[in-house]
Amino acid sequence: MRLEETHTPYERRRTSRRDADVADLVARARDGQARAVARLISLVEDASPKLREASAALIGHAGHAQIIGLTGPPGVGKSTTTTALVSAFRAAGKRVGVLAVDPSSPFSGGALLGDRVRMQEHALDPDVFIRSMATRGHLGGLAWATPQALRVLDGAGCDVVLIETVGVGQAEVEIAQLADSTVVLLAPGMGDGIQAAKAGILEVADLYVVNKADREGAKQTVRDLRYMLSLGGKHSQAGAWRPPVLSTVASRGDGIEDVVKALDKHRRWLDDSGERGRRQQERAAAEIEAIAVAALRERMGDVHGSAALGALAQRVVAGKIDPYAAADALIDEL
Amino acid sequence: MRLEETHTPYERRRTSRRDADVADLVARARDGQARAVARLISLVEDASPKLREASAALIGHAGHAQIIGLTGPPGVGKSTTTTALVSAFRAAGKRVGVLAVDPSSPFSGGALLGDRVRMQEHALDPDVFIRSMATRGHLGGLAWATPQALRVLDGAGCDVVLIETVGVGQAEVEIAQLADSTVVLLAPGMGDGIQAAKAGILEVADLYVVNKADREGAKQTVRDLRYMLSLGGKHSQAGAWRPPVLSTVASRGDGIEDVVKALDKHRRWLDDSGERGRRQQERAAAEIEAIAVAALRERMGDVHGSAALGALAQRVVAGKIDPYAAADALIDEL
Repeated sequence: MRLEETHTPYERRRTSRRDADVADLVARARDGQARAVARLISLVEDASPKLREASAALIGHAGHAQIIGLTGPPGVGKSTTTTALVSAFRAAGKRVGVLAVDPSSPFSGGALLGDRVRMQEHALDPDVFIRSMATRGHLGGLAWATPQALRVLDGAGCDVVLIETVGVGQAEVEIAQLADSTVVLLAPGMGDGIQAAKAGILEVADLYVVNKADREGAKQTVRDLRYMLSLGGKHSQAGAWRPPVLSTVASRGDGIEDVVKALDKHRRWLDDSGERGRRQQERAAAEIEAIAVAALRERMGDVHGSAALGALAQRVVAGKIDPYAAADALIDEL
Repeated sequence: MRLEETHTPYERRRTSRRDADVADLVARARDGQARAVARLISLVEDASPKLREASAALIGHAGHAQIIGLTGPPGVGKSTTTTALVSAFRAAGKRVGVLAVDPSSPFSGGALLGDRVRMQEHALDPDVFIRSMATRGHLGGLAWATPQALRVLDGAGCDVVLIETVGVGQAEVEIAQLADSTVVLLAPGMGDGIQAAKAGILEVADLYVVNKADREGAKQTVRDLRYMLSLGGKHSQAGAWRPPVLSTVASRGDGIEDVVKALDKHRRWLDDSGERGRRQQERAAAEIEAIAVAALRERMGDVHGSAALGALAQRVVAGKIDPYAAADALIDEL
């Protein structure tokens, strides 16, 4: 099901009436009702004060889903690969959530939806939840919103949640790190992609997939990646996970089974090595910190702040105090 | 001058001795001594406790430089354009700083330097300061570090500082917003670039440059951009700045003079409209907030935290409390 919400006045009245009872909303989401899941993720996107209540109602109903991150440069076929993976998981009888996160649109108030169209084959399946998410310039950003949206999908009984992010920037890396298993997608002949992978996302990948493997240069890209991995880093330690490099032609479904198998293997390694617990723990700590930082920033900007911060900024611009002294003064106000 | 620091033990001893007197370091930087400028930016990169002192010593010695942001997708020729702009500003007798910021490398501990090689023609000019910067996974990130590095270059008497960022993600947009004038570079036939520009960076550009204008499709890209801009947005208000769309072949220097002229025109508009003061004020507020947030995060993670945060995360994972309650508890500890 597509979880994008409609925005007619009629809809809004209905949803606001429904919001009245967040506990009921959570109960219906846990029951797998798409509308309730969509509404809860909208609360996350809007940074609604009701989130606190929703979050409390979800206690004990999350932590079961296998969370898979997909990232890579534009044009490597992330949506096509996601679609193919969803088909594979559905064939295995699993309930699947897809969270398409676009950190590059801070202003537009909506993620790039063009690619989502390709996921239409799953648009009517009641056991597939698909949602695009953007930050809308919120204080906490995606690092704040993504774990909360994940918890909603997890609480709604998804066995697998795929987080798909566009690009190779720091935000994407952070989002990828929210996953149990992170898949980095590349395509042949993308010099920039490899460059970016070298610089930033090399260390976060649990699995490399060279998509469009029927194109020229695919074997070279695979060789390059394997060579990079052979150079060591964290993967060379004993007992460490060695990220495999796989090839796919996602548009035809070629190689997708191997990706699913590698993901299952990685999941077993996560369990056996205790790494899964460590990642869950790290994720929870990051989420708590993000919520606390957002709350403190809100206090700085809104409650005491706006005037205080403005006055301090003016004094910095005028060369009367330095930003550190101003920051001290701001913290004192809290 | 290239401001990258060497890291031999001999160098380190020398620099640590020199750090002894931060005030002296700042005095030498204000004198335009490249080594002192390099050392101060390293303090920023390392989030050194000495920054506080350096920041205080720089009071009243910054705020004069024209700050120009350059951003755009990989492959549009940002480094070539930056080099050409540096030549143009040098020809006008200006002292120029270049800060090449790479938000996509949170792990590597160093920005992609390959492209910097092209800037070699300015490497020995004592009135050009060139520095690549990465975050090294620092808490505050580039939004924290960039304004401080800017202030150092500004304090060192640069008339112009160019901030060059790779990519089109949210981090790049944030960095671009630190500038007085933001230039978004595009190249013909880059569908993804235009998509990204539409989604994220459209609203931050004060100036569009279609580089590689000798390639097929350049005129179409210019037309597309002008059409997008004609659709309105903030630029359609009375008295608003209307971002021009220019064409360049930076490798040959073609069109660079027009870019410089447009930047001068934008600077005059900033002064006349009062926008320059507003942007300085906003920048200072953002910097103060970033320093305060980094300080608070450090307290959460380090001082009280590590143990407290770990214990709270454990309880969240175990389904005993929700992240909001945990965040409240964490803030109470501060």
